Amino acid sequence: MSFTGSMQQWPLRVTTILDHAANLFPRQEVVSRRVEGDIHRLDYATLRERVRRCANVLDKLGVAPGDRVGTLAWNTHRHLEVWYACAGLGATYHTVNPRLFEEQIQWIVADAEDSILLVDLTFVALAERIVAACSSVKRVVILTDRAHMPTTSLPDALCYEDLVADASPDFCFREFDEETALGLCYTSGTTGRPKGVLYSHRSTVLHAMGVNMADAFGLSSRMGVMPVVPMYHANAWALPFAAPMVGAKLVLPGAKLDGASLCELAESEGVTLAAGVPTVWVGFVDHVRERQVKLQALKRVVVGGSACSEALFDALERDCGVEVLHAWGMTELSPVASYATVRAGMESAPVEALHRLRLKQGAPVYSVEMRIVDAQGVPMPHDGVNAGALQVRGPSVLREYYKGAGGQVLDGDGFFDTGDIATIDEHGFMHITDRAKDMIKSGGEWISSIELENAALGHPAVVEAAAIAVPHEKWGERPLLLAVRRPDMQVEEGEVIAWLGGKLARWAVPEQVLFVDALPHTATGKLDKASLRKSYGTPASTQA
Amino acid sequence: MSFTGSMQQWPLRVTTILDHAANLFPRQEVVSRRVEGDIHRLDYATLRERVRRCANVLDKLGVAPGDRVGTLAWNTHRHLEVWYACAGLGATYHTVNPRLFEEQIQWIVADAEDSILLVDLTFVALAERIVAACSSVKRVVILTDRAHMPTTSLPDALCYEDLVADASPDFCFREFDEETALGLCYTSGTTGRPKGVLYSHRSTVLHAMGVNMADAFGLSSRMGVMPVVPMYHANAWALPFAAPMVGAKLVLPGAKLDGASLCELAESEGVTLAAGVPTVWVGFVDHVRERQVKLQALKRVVVGGSACSEALFDALERDCGVEVLHAWGMTELSPVASYATVRAGMESAPVEALHRLRLKQGAPVYSVEMRIVDAQGVPMPHDGVNAGALQVRGPSVLREYYKGAGGQVLDGDGFFDTGDIATIDEHGFMHITDRAKDMIKSGGEWISSIELENAALGHPAVVEAAAIAVPHEKWGERPLLLAVRRPDMQVEEGEVIAWLGGKLARWAVPEQVLFVDALPHTATGKLDKASLRKSYGTPASTQA
Repeated sequence: MSFTGSMQQWPLRVTTILDHAANLFPRQEVVSRRVEGDIHRLDYATLRERVRRCANVLDKLGVAPGDRVGTLAWNTHRHLEVWYACAGLGATYHTVNPRLFEEQIQWIVADAEDSILLVDLTFVALAERIVAACSSVKRVVILTDRAHMPTTSLPDALCYEDLVADASPDFCFREFDEETALGLCYTSGTTGRPKGVLYSHRSTVLHAMGVNMADAFGLSSRMGVMPVVPMYHANAWALPFAAPMVGAKLVLPGAKLDGASLCELAESEGVTLAAGVPTVWVGFVDHVRERQVKLQALKRVVVGGSACSEALFDALERDCGVEVLHAWGMTELSPVASYATVRAGMESAPVEALHRLRLKQGAPVYSVEMRIVDAQGVPMPHDGVNAGALQVRGPSVLREYYKGAGGQVLDGDGFFDTGDIATIDEHGFMHITDRAKDMIKSGGEWISSIELENAALGHPAVVEAAAIAVPHEKWGERPLLLAVRRPDMQVEEGEVIAWLGGKLARWAVPEQVLFVDALPHTATGKLDKASLRKSYGTPASTQA
Repeated sequence: MSFTGSMQQWPLRVTTILDHAANLFPRQEVVSRRVEGDIHRLDYATLRERVRRCANVLDKLGVAPGDRVGTLAWNTHRHLEVWYACAGLGATYHTVNPRLFEEQIQWIVADAEDSILLVDLTFVALAERIVAACSSVKRVVILTDRAHMPTTSLPDALCYEDLVADASPDFCFREFDEETALGLCYTSGTTGRPKGVLYSHRSTVLHAMGVNMADAFGLSSRMGVMPVVPMYHANAWALPFAAPMVGAKLVLPGAKLDGASLCELAESEGVTLAAGVPTVWVGFVDHVRERQVKLQALKRVVVGGSACSEALFDALERDCGVEVLHAWGMTELSPVASYATVRAGMESAPVEALHRLRLKQGAPVYSVEMRIVDAQGVPMPHDGVNAGALQVRGPSVLREYYKGAGGQVLDGDGFFDTGDIATIDEHGFMHITDRAKDMIKSGGEWISSIELENAALGHPAVVEAAAIAVPHEKWGERPLLLAVRRPDMQVEEGEVIAWLGGKLARWAVPEQVLFVDALPHTATGKLDKASLRKSYGTPASTQA
């Protein structure tokens, strides 16, 4: 007697997603705003044909199973083709974040040992500057057609469209274990070297299936889906997999992420769900308000990457008439781990309570386990009050960083520590109160920098805010608030402090607010607190 | 360099579904109409506690990993507890269909080598008759409490609730490979011995994730879900896994499947989606019409198991005001494989065309591959016209029957032949034209017995119909229609033939219609055409 079921071996390879889309939704469209400026459209059947051609191209360029293929590219069909072609070869695409410092990019490409680099026109100059120092890179392919090929100092740069046109459309996607590496993405750590997360076919397929559940993104073939979040940010939150998995229309915005361009593309292409970080939605809201746009197509906006402020949430729902879905994730989690979707038991909550719930980071769907633990690693209650270290476990959570960087990252129960401090309430809704390292400890009380920043953002004249800890003789640490003024408005330090006084516990109100022209950001658009601490984190500097 | 991704090992075991429900939706309800007559309710947290107790019970009774545990039971929480307890032990639950002939049940229990049998009160008498001949069965547990324990000739029959009450609530679900066997269900073949399908944890979890996609059942935590289809019919179409996976309320109707009981339970418990075979919906529609019930809660009805006739489809949508989702599957497919959900590209179809599409068996969601092939096994086009042998492949499709019964069942490409003849249209919508063995070949033309039956069912005085082939000297075969009259109506052979003449190709209209009091059915409620062919399938018998 065997203890094993007698069902089929059918490995979860992401090429099965492309096959599903091409077989069941051959005429469904993938629309791209290309870097060249045009709107390009192809359907899933044609996408698969081009992926097969691209696989032949990479194969001929010497890409072997397991090899890393680097990309410096925006969200367009060509970038998508490279991903799926790597998947079909058993190779690994490596999305390089072009906003990183050049030395970081060089270091990452070398660490990944990328053998080929595919770059958008936008990044040719960048590639020219870094490629000499990247000894693993054998060839550079420019993601454009012959007519747009630039003059370049890159040795033997190849033209993507020429290669694709010359390649055979016949390619049989390779067969291999579902644990095979699929994609590589480095976290842009604000401290230390970036570390790579190496996704597998299995982790990616299971994550996309989770994303497609009704209480998550709930995609369907009748939707138009626009990942505004770049493909080099943690797989564009899985949308390039989740959308073809259900036959949804995919709309790729290329390099134009300003409010006007996004709004125009979304409405003209029938986008019903779009996903991006708060910053892009701020620009979007400004555009909609200024031009008094009445959105027809767009129904739902996913906000993630950083916490969505109440001001942005309300502007999207009230002024733009779209539903906001607040989601949370990390590169290490494939990346989406929780969704603030209204769930059973919440419908009857009073409007104000429901609003507060929807501003939390939400709850996981099946296959993501989430818990908070105390300093001893003991699980804490889900009471919505007590905050602990947030930990995650599941098939789409990393086991270790690429090449083992940073050593052991799981605890004895196999949970990954996110570095965030959070509460979990009776609905399972998680709320991040702070990054562990950003918490401010004053007179024995914890002050959440996020809470302080969000309170400041509620002031109409404050467009961006960052709170950091400054050492203090008496209290140990005190908060310092750095704020950016709205250009057309006036506001003074005292007013902001008074404003905060009405919203926060007494000890959390800073004594000092510094107005700055701009705040520094990491390559993924997050506030660069490490740099702020360096500039302002000493008592002396705050006097400057 | 490894080619393997660095994501977590997290086996797809169904106990993770129960843990998800208990952790995230501890207060969500599972409501059962029990065999004793009462309405019982517990929540997912309590369900998990009882599952742990049940696992301790089975463990003490000697159930080891890999052992089969037989059930003769309706859809109630106790049956559900036994399933998940087996899952937690690494044992295999075996749902025995109590409607089979007793010799078949004996044969199946012996073939499965069930070591324990758990039976509802309804089936105690049945168990008494068969158990002596089932030498593998060491103990029988009656799924009731002390107050309802019957006098029985079963040796040492145990009382389920006593055992559960005495057991410890502490049990750590065992860890094992996701390919481990989880459940066993025999197909009630109309010819030959029943054959077992042995589901694995992996196949079941992936199937439930597919079922939960928006274009499939699309369950969410805000829904009430009632599987009317019995748990002994291919896992009740995965709903006992799909509902807790998303935290939906689960409503289990027990033994009362008449229209009045179902309607009362659905409405009082806020059931928004219910699923069952056409027969139960016929009774449901009759009740709703007779009592002029205005359904408030119920929004969507899944019809599967047999094809949904147009008359039933229209009655449900028009008279009951619920949306019909026509679905199709087989025990061998876990079981649901396709859904006639309105998809991209269909919304703009004319009303009549859309209606015809929704009466098809529909299209698969991701992880089910479907194709039609000709007699040489060559894939045929998706033109909606040419019919071929329907084949299916995927992680939730069987590789072989239990103990290898029936030998090799996959073709060279790994596809399972369903035995159905079908077309697939440009939307990927599959339409079963017949069982391969039920097709009638007359004068070189194929006649679909299903098409003929559905046309006959359109006549207001015909409540059931079966078409079979009868040998014919000139034409090879000719169709014979057997029909059951609506009790309160009159209709003659000539009227039915004339009715069919307006609906079918000339050669498909039978020369003869025989009225019978009832038609024979298999244990899963399907027309038993083998028996009809035996009784009526010779030229002589049709003259009788």
